[in-house]
Amino acid sequence: MEPRAFQDSYPSELSHCYGCGRLNEHGLQIKSYWSGDETVATYVPRPYHIAIPGYVYGGLIASLIDCHGTGTAAAAAARAAGGELGADPRFRFVTASLRVQFVRPTPLGVPLELRGRVGEITARKVTVTATVSARGELCARGEVVAVQLPEGMMPQVGAA
Amino acid sequence: MEPRAFQDSYPSELSHCYGCGRLNEHGLQIKSYWSGDETVATYVPRPYHIAIPGYVYGGLIASLIDCHGTGTAAAAAARAAGGELGADPRFRFVTASLRVQFVRPTPLGVPLELRGRVGEITARKVTVTATVSARGELCARGEVVAVQLPEGMMPQVGAA
Repeated sequence: MEPRAFQDSYPSELSHCYGCGRLNEHGLQIKSYWSGDETVATYVPRPYHIAIPGYVYGGLIASLIDCHGTGTAAAAAARAAGGELGADPRFRFVTASLRVQFVRPTPLGVPLELRGRVGEITARKVTVTATVSARGELCARGEVVAVQLPEGMMPQVGAA
Repeated sequence: MEPRAFQDSYPSELSHCYGCGRLNEHGLQIKSYWSGDETVATYVPRPYHIAIPGYVYGGLIASLIDCHGTGTAAAAAARAAGGELGADPRFRFVTASLRVQFVRPTPLGVPLELRGRVGEITARKVTVTATVSARGELCARGEVVAVQLPEGMMPQVGAA
């Protein structure tokens, strides 16, 4: 496992994401790491991330899968290119599509473990599948199709 | 358009959802209404609901689709049964699966319009398709498969 989270390697102007940006003080700030050929992130939902009392809100689970997926895509693209996550904008991905299947109600109040697996990698697109587990039990599965950040979305350095 | 939002008709013990519960002071509190045979909700993302600066976070869009979808499912089930949303727990749905396709980057700082359409309705399951638009332009499409709240997830009245 690398000591630095994928998301902490993003350049500052791309670090405002509500789900994973280290500069978004209101956000979830999720952190993803390599664990062998898989990726892993742990998140403890806040007490108000409720669906039905006692269970975690599905939109939060979708959000965790989304950011763990784009982070995994970025790290996999960098690894495949022999590069490192960092200033290179080739290694920043956004979500083209997201699928979540809720397998069982996710208990609130315990850490959630996300695991990601890299599927297809092409020049501009990476597919990631993910699982979300609580107390060792599978609660949700997801798939993220992530694409390189389009040039038109790239913020000017220092603008944000 | 009915004057009362679907989500404001849920019984109190089912009104803590982070996405749409009227009793969740930290949540998004989205409100959905009939508009003919479609359903509609409007939401203005908060300034920190950022993906890349200038654009809305995809996990928020997934969350809006999720709650507009389950709300639409509940309202459609009540309408199909000739009943009304309210205390009847038959008319409270949770998400079995969620799909979101991001069509174009969603601009931050303007209202988002969600529209829902009811697909298949069976005894315990309703499929809803949804669109998210900004300034009249389609930004995302979604599909929610919603199922009746399982009895085991039902909170005791007064417990939450």
